[in-house]
Amino acid sequence: MAAETYAKGLEGIIAADSSICKIDGVNGNLYYRGYSIFDLAAECSFEEVTYLLLYDELPAPTQLAGFSKKMRGSRTLAEPIIQMVRFFPTAAHPMELLQSVISYLSGYVTHHIEHSATCNCRNTLHQVAQLASVVAAHGRFRDGKEYVPPDPDLSHGANFLYMLRGSMPDPLESEIMDKCLLLHAEHGFNASTFTARVVASTLSTCYSSISSAIGSLYGSLHGGANERVMSMVQEIGGIDNVKTWVDKALSEKRKIMGMGHRVYKVKDPRAVIMERYLEQLSEFKNDYTYFEILKELEKTAGERLSGSGKTVYPNVDYFSGAVYLLLGIPPILFTPIFALARVAGWLAHILEQRSDNRIYRPRCQYIGPDALEFVPQEKR
Amino acid sequence: MAAETYAKGLEGIIAADSSICKIDGVNGNLYYRGYSIFDLAAECSFEEVTYLLLYDELPAPTQLAGFSKKMRGSRTLAEPIIQMVRFFPTAAHPMELLQSVISYLSGYVTHHIEHSATCNCRNTLHQVAQLASVVAAHGRFRDGKEYVPPDPDLSHGANFLYMLRGSMPDPLESEIMDKCLLLHAEHGFNASTFTARVVASTLSTCYSSISSAIGSLYGSLHGGANERVMSMVQEIGGIDNVKTWVDKALSEKRKIMGMGHRVYKVKDPRAVIMERYLEQLSEFKNDYTYFEILKELEKTAGERLSGSGKTVYPNVDYFSGAVYLLLGIPPILFTPIFALARVAGWLAHILEQRSDNRIYRPRCQYIGPDALEFVPQEKR
Repeated sequence: MAAETYAKGLEGIIAADSSICKIDGVNGNLYYRGYSIFDLAAECSFEEVTYLLLYDELPAPTQLAGFSKKMRGSRTLAEPIIQMVRFFPTAAHPMELLQSVISYLSGYVTHHIEHSATCNCRNTLHQVAQLASVVAAHGRFRDGKEYVPPDPDLSHGANFLYMLRGSMPDPLESEIMDKCLLLHAEHGFNASTFTARVVASTLSTCYSSISSAIGSLYGSLHGGANERVMSMVQEIGGIDNVKTWVDKALSEKRKIMGMGHRVYKVKDPRAVIMERYLEQLSEFKNDYTYFEILKELEKTAGERLSGSGKTVYPNVDYFSGAVYLLLGIPPILFTPIFALARVAGWLAHILEQRSDNRIYRPRCQYIGPDALEFVPQEKR
Repeated sequence: MAAETYAKGLEGIIAADSSICKIDGVNGNLYYRGYSIFDLAAECSFEEVTYLLLYDELPAPTQLAGFSKKMRGSRTLAEPIIQMVRFFPTAAHPMELLQSVISYLSGYVTHHIEHSATCNCRNTLHQVAQLASVVAAHGRFRDGKEYVPPDPDLSHGANFLYMLRGSMPDPLESEIMDKCLLLHAEHGFNASTFTARVVASTLSTCYSSISSAIGSLYGSLHGGANERVMSMVQEIGGIDNVKTWVDKALSEKRKIMGMGHRVYKVKDPRAVIMERYLEQLSEFKNDYTYFEILKELEKTAGERLSGSGKTVYPNVDYFSGAVYLLLGIPPILFTPIFALARVAGWLAHILEQRSDNRIYRPRCQYIGPDALEFVPQEKR
């Protein structure tokens, strides 16, 4: 038997090779397939980046056109799926609805689904495109409104806003929504991506694997940070309260939400980009409330913590919640939006896992009792 | 940064402590919470063993009565769930339906569900009990039959057969079905149980965690072995063909299905027990076809491989498929039945994970390109 390593939570264990995503925590950069997130956010759409993640190259114009057409043609929800969304109780969390729909969907994709490693999940894109449709439909049903069919002339981000609102979004809003999805499309091995790969490693389908990843993202240790940032912003209430709030929070050793990251030692590059979108959107909406509070909080926290040895910089969650609120999106949909963006990365990881598969099979150490004598019911 | 260990597929890594299950691969025994599977199969019901797994002790009679009442009271499917099962296309695989239903279910459990580690998943048992109801209902809908409501006077195994068939099973059939569930209730860290723990470690709900585990079990490297055993038995066709079939299979280096196990070096204790049920059931049905082929195959394979250094013994999957077929269950439901039994173990592992939680967060090694220069669309 090979030597065994004890690693609770698998800390310090490298479980696989990957060529999808590189995080440069020292210089504050993030690369999808080698391309910097700054270039991708400046130049590409979410669909283009999804192509890059799935095919490992930037698409030529005709390739992108074909891919977009396929992805946009996969947005419409089948009637039984609409019913599932409609009848899901609004007291429950939409992440469990989303998890449920994606595995159910397997039965409603008319293309051939191979239950094996040879399944080419790039042939249909329902498992990518329909997450946005489900979240938008659920958002409307929550408000007692009706389902709005997708519009194939719109980008993925614009179509999401359109299906959620039932009216055409402004071009700036569409652009920013699409870029938000792009910024969240991939970020290496985290709990949800790892879950997708674990399930894929049994040679389960991409539907099962993505559904399971959504289950992990639902956990409060993983998703939900931008919801908590905005709760904090609401609690602060106004720019004049920031300094007092920070001092109180630090004295009570409370965490400042949306700051710090396991890997980034400087400001998260996605936060750098997201901050610009928030500023543009604040100008467009003529409402700088969130922007001002967040900038003042960033400055104050930086001043208070300078010299403490802690370098606390905003991460991607710090500005995204404010962007979503200004786009008219309710907080309950924030984590589902993370899922409908990250699905691109999950699928890339599922394909990579299959291309050189080894089933994930760690062991556990038995610490229970040795053989016990059975006790019949009458003697218990 | 701590030293890192590279372990593809997490081989040789101990990821957690556990006191739920002990496998004695040398002596051929299996223990749930310290109690031998031989005693448990002889003395207990599936409900009793589920209690043992969830509460870490054998129930006193009043405890068992209360637990059974709660579990039996959780069997009835809500109307929207029945609709989901009804409209799931029969060309798709019921494992994806099962995965879907369990996370959807979270919205239909009227008890309070905490989205956190403090959620006491033992307060409601829908996530355990309803898997059987869903599989039975799907089995009937596949055949164009109607939903049969559960009968609270029946054991879990008997009720499953009743809901599947629409008529009362014979007491021997009921007993054997219930024991089959008991034998599959738990088996330590495998891909599906590991998946359940990974998802639970993000503090997701037990619904999300169990749903994800079902996704892993669906993979052809994990579930489905007993289906393949019975395909092999059909291929062999009769006891007189066994020797020829084995010689041909060995010369072609084909795997003999349902034999061998990563941990057991002797006959899987569950196979020892399952063989007795198959013999009893063959007598009851007056049909020894499967039993004779399987016994002859076991004997022949043992003779042919003796001296080869290989010790190939039947595992639990070797006899279970034949038992299910004799109980009138179609092969497409074999892996779903595994799920509706194993859910007891999954829930025990989810609770154990939460009791001393550390999020599972292995890393990956980046092997992709270094920073690439962005190429505008017109130059691709």
